[in-house]
Amino acid sequence: MEMSKKTIDEASKKMIEKACRDCVETVWDRYEKQQPQCGFGELGVCCRICLSGPCRINPFGEPSKGICGATADTIVARNLLRSVACGAATHVDHAFEAVEMLDMAADKKIPYDIKDEAKLHAVADKLGIAKEGKDKYELSKEVARAMFADFAPGKETMDYLSKMVPQERLEVWRKLGILPRDPDLEIRRVMHQTTMGVDADPVNLLLATAKMGLVDCYSGLKLGTDVQDIVFGTPTPVKTEANLGVLKKDKVNIVVHGHVPFLSEKIVEWARKLESEAIAAGATGVQLSGLCCTGNEVLMRQGVASAGNYLSQELAIITGAVDLMVVDVQCIMPSLAQVAACYHTKLVTTHEIGKIPGAEHVDFRAESADEDAAKIVRMGIEAYKQRQAAKVEIPSDKAEMWGGFSVEAIVGALSKLDADNPLKPLVDNIVAGNVYGAVGIVGCNNPRFPQDSVIVPLAMELVKNNVLVVVTGCVAHALGKVGLMSPEGAEKYAGPGLLAVLRAVGEANGLGGPLPPVLHMGSCVDNARIGDLISALAAYLNVPVPALPVAASAPELNHEKALSIGTWAVDMGLLTHIGMPPNILGSPVCAKVLTEDIEGLTGGKFYVEPDPQIAAEKILEHIKAKREGLGI
Amino acid sequence: MEMSKKTIDEASKKMIEKACRDCVETVWDRYEKQQPQCGFGELGVCCRICLSGPCRINPFGEPSKGICGATADTIVARNLLRSVACGAATHVDHAFEAVEMLDMAADKKIPYDIKDEAKLHAVADKLGIAKEGKDKYELSKEVARAMFADFAPGKETMDYLSKMVPQERLEVWRKLGILPRDPDLEIRRVMHQTTMGVDADPVNLLLATAKMGLVDCYSGLKLGTDVQDIVFGTPTPVKTEANLGVLKKDKVNIVVHGHVPFLSEKIVEWARKLESEAIAAGATGVQLSGLCCTGNEVLMRQGVASAGNYLSQELAIITGAVDLMVVDVQCIMPSLAQVAACYHTKLVTTHEIGKIPGAEHVDFRAESADEDAAKIVRMGIEAYKQRQAAKVEIPSDKAEMWGGFSVEAIVGALSKLDADNPLKPLVDNIVAGNVYGAVGIVGCNNPRFPQDSVIVPLAMELVKNNVLVVVTGCVAHALGKVGLMSPEGAEKYAGPGLLAVLRAVGEANGLGGPLPPVLHMGSCVDNARIGDLISALAAYLNVPVPALPVAASAPELNHEKALSIGTWAVDMGLLTHIGMPPNILGSPVCAKVLTEDIEGLTGGKFYVEPDPQIAAEKILEHIKAKREGLGI
Repeated sequence: MEMSKKTIDEASKKMIEKACRDCVETVWDRYEKQQPQCGFGELGVCCRICLSGPCRINPFGEPSKGICGATADTIVARNLLRSVACGAATHVDHAFEAVEMLDMAADKKIPYDIKDEAKLHAVADKLGIAKEGKDKYELSKEVARAMFADFAPGKETMDYLSKMVPQERLEVWRKLGILPRDPDLEIRRVMHQTTMGVDADPVNLLLATAKMGLVDCYSGLKLGTDVQDIVFGTPTPVKTEANLGVLKKDKVNIVVHGHVPFLSEKIVEWARKLESEAIAAGATGVQLSGLCCTGNEVLMRQGVASAGNYLSQELAIITGAVDLMVVDVQCIMPSLAQVAACYHTKLVTTHEIGKIPGAEHVDFRAESADEDAAKIVRMGIEAYKQRQAAKVEIPSDKAEMWGGFSVEAIVGALSKLDADNPLKPLVDNIVAGNVYGAVGIVGCNNPRFPQDSVIVPLAMELVKNNVLVVVTGCVAHALGKVGLMSPEGAEKYAGPGLLAVLRAVGEANGLGGPLPPVLHMGSCVDNARIGDLISALAAYLNVPVPALPVAASAPELNHEKALSIGTWAVDMGLLTHIGMPPNILGSPVCAKVLTEDIEGLTGGKFYVEPDPQIAAEKILEHIKAKREGLGI
Repeated sequence: MEMSKKTIDEASKKMIEKACRDCVETVWDRYEKQQPQCGFGELGVCCRICLSGPCRINPFGEPSKGICGATADTIVARNLLRSVACGAATHVDHAFEAVEMLDMAADKKIPYDIKDEAKLHAVADKLGIAKEGKDKYELSKEVARAMFADFAPGKETMDYLSKMVPQERLEVWRKLGILPRDPDLEIRRVMHQTTMGVDADPVNLLLATAKMGLVDCYSGLKLGTDVQDIVFGTPTPVKTEANLGVLKKDKVNIVVHGHVPFLSEKIVEWARKLESEAIAAGATGVQLSGLCCTGNEVLMRQGVASAGNYLSQELAIITGAVDLMVVDVQCIMPSLAQVAACYHTKLVTTHEIGKIPGAEHVDFRAESADEDAAKIVRMGIEAYKQRQAAKVEIPSDKAEMWGGFSVEAIVGALSKLDADNPLKPLVDNIVAGNVYGAVGIVGCNNPRFPQDSVIVPLAMELVKNNVLVVVTGCVAHALGKVGLMSPEGAEKYAGPGLLAVLRAVGEANGLGGPLPPVLHMGSCVDNARIGDLISALAAYLNVPVPALPVAASAPELNHEKALSIGTWAVDMGLLTHIGMPPNILGSPVCAKVLTEDIEGLTGGKFYVEPDPQIAAEKILEHIKAKREGLGI
């Protein structure tokens, strides 16, 4: 497999070469060994949900049905629904744990405080909880109770949906019959619905899929983000660096990887507190870096540097400079244990549902978070002593990268231009055509694409055409590495209209340069921030969400989470570009509904295109049409 | 495919031949077309949980890992866990709907009454709910509220588990760390745990699987059965008939198929009420028959005849005599729509998560259950008028079959021998060796086995060796058809010790003959009755459940439900025979843990054997060892 098929990132290339020299297997080696991949699986026409099977449908003839009689349409829709439900379940589970943390923090039972009273008040207001006479702990307790109530039987629909979304969307979803009751009930029901001999109707299954998108956002993404902001603070703009070059030869390198900031925030705290122990061990300090979404969480709130995205996780260890990598849940390659075993790196798992054979498990608990985090950081310092200098090779590549663009931060920056009406300058510039539109680019890496090879050119092309790009997840790391998330990136890559606006906002905020043309809004769960931003724009303009000159894109999607988030984006009424189809092409019905018919129902649809140039053109066309629709 | 590979049942054979003449495709045709089935899927080493894949492991070499680095052990354990969780979800969803019904019935909002006050009182006692001064509606409301509370966040473990199981089991499960908090939280968490990059540890995944077994039983099986008994009455012995010969040439034949008695009970009621309309239409009345588990539900409580089990569902329609088949959820072949289209048969779906293209959908709701059921029965009467006499061929095969053996019914029958101590006669006879032991045979049909070909010889052999057999699900229909569930079956097939006991109980109860040697305990969810029975025996003997001379068997398992029920049986400490392995043989670790190591943890384990004679021998050996362990 040629290097050009593996990555477009220079640091990654160097580490892939080093892996080869060090005889370490990487994801691309395994990808190559898996070729050719199963065509039945790729088309979605493989069914394994009962012991009569596995069954597979021949797209060219017989067998045209599973043993039970399920057609390709049924099998594809059922598989998709189960996947999307699992994607939603990850976010719901993440958010639920966050609510449990909030509840315990309110009781002062755990060493986490309530940092952001303004966010707490904003959420309480939305939920209709009176704030008067309550301190932040009492109010947090009430907010947590209201959040828990969404998980208990008895509601028509979740408060966190009905009280948080534009009324227009609520009506669309009600009419479609896809308003969820409670998240867990709906996930359980879908698991039932997709077992053998229950639902065979692809349209009914696709409607349930659309419902799962709402479960994902309003009991997952948004709930998780709001709680994490309350506990850890809503992000504000912060400067840091991105790429493997952030690792430091002379420091204890600790890398946080996973998704939930309850672990990573404590690691940050204790890495700072135990700096002196690192020095005593012969290092010049502790260098903390982040991978994937927990990397984004601590980047957004603590300015922690980004070591890279999904496909860089093994490469970080291959530098030979990582003393300890600590992980919680999601997107953690089990291979890390084997890669770490080739170096001195200590791999530490921390979550009861996320263990890896070969890793050391520290049972990280909220109640003992300080002790647990200190222990883990000390394990890193200890491991540093075992570092083999001859094996260390840190690529010099890194770029300046800004993060911390929560909706509150964006509105705050805009308010320097118009304090009374902060969205007005942005909307005026959209109307004037200086900002042509906005696109949220989100999601994963996937070894089917050279790392970042769809993400980067797509973002470049949009920015060049004066489209404001907002990002989360692995996409943020990708665009940070190429400098698109720095003031310099604005000067270099942004179209003139967009640049003028970015400069005006930058100046008004005393940044000494333009805002970056790509705004880092956070981790995967922070996609809710993008939803809040477009909801605010729609409200300001008093138009339905699908009327906005905006779009969504997951160019290199990979995880089931990307499918559930994408489904929500379509529910929101957005054109949702994906760089490859999910495993649905074996069903003409599913493919047509998701890429065509659904637009008549929600206003959104999926659009599949692996080529970033073509995708950019199509997205620009879409924005043009929406602008025309608004008469601008 | 030879007939001997399709079924051992004579009625089925005739209808398979008729299908051939009528050019109707059946499950066996589709099974044949699916050969050879995917070996990767069969071994469980196919992974489709992210869009980097599908991946598959070569059991003989490379690739030995998925693209993310997941090994065969990880992939197999993850697939198994997801399947078992989906199995559990079906039962939890079923039970939850039942609790909603109970709650609405308590409010007198729906046309269902509370029939069984004794059961209501028994459940209230177990839950610690005071009964005094409350009418059955008030008490039902409180019981429903307590049941709902198990689904809300905040509990250490579900009341329906901790208050219902032997203390000894509770301790075993607590020590293993597999006590579930609330069912929906656990199902959601498992969906998270099995997504890409979360859990890679097969042992951790298998422990979560064991937990899902408990979720299945105590928020599914037992909860569902108890509520259904409260609403519809606890079954008592009833005589009926089994096999396709129960269909009537001169009557309107309506067949109920699926799982939830809230539909089928109303169909029974209205089939009886609208008899005169059937006569007006030229028939001599309405003949109601049941398939699969909803068939068992109305057999147990209403004496409705059994048309057959899973593999007979298409064959019932192929008689040409079924005017209407009405279904709800689970085990309903989507092919029924195509088969029905070859005849005059009306296929009616009724559940919002169970639609089939080509079927007519009636949105059956509790609030309008009478109107909906009447409408469906009238659709059947209407369809009768379209019946094509030339296409009708009803096999004459049928057998006398007894059902209705709830624990309460069994204890009631025994109490005629010893009113103060009803379990004593049974236990005394076990000690004396007249009853050698007891085996619960449960589960599905699977076209991998000729229909009933493992079930029937296994049961025959056990009964011959004086083992009392209790059954549920598709197994009940299979053994009913061969006469094992009638007094005559006792005379013909039971060993002398067992026969003497069956005669004694039969005489004491004035049955004019022995009890059947195989006791029909109900539908799949009624497996909880088997759990209650063995718990009562263990309590009486004051020994742990695994010490009892008992075993479980699912000879022809098929549905994911069978996997979750089997997991619970192993949790209970039972030797659990299955006729084929689930898709786990690609992982030596999983295979060893489930068939060997787990015995050291719960006392139970899986035992895989397709040959019924060998399985019977092994089960008898197991019973012998347990008898020796008890010193009897």
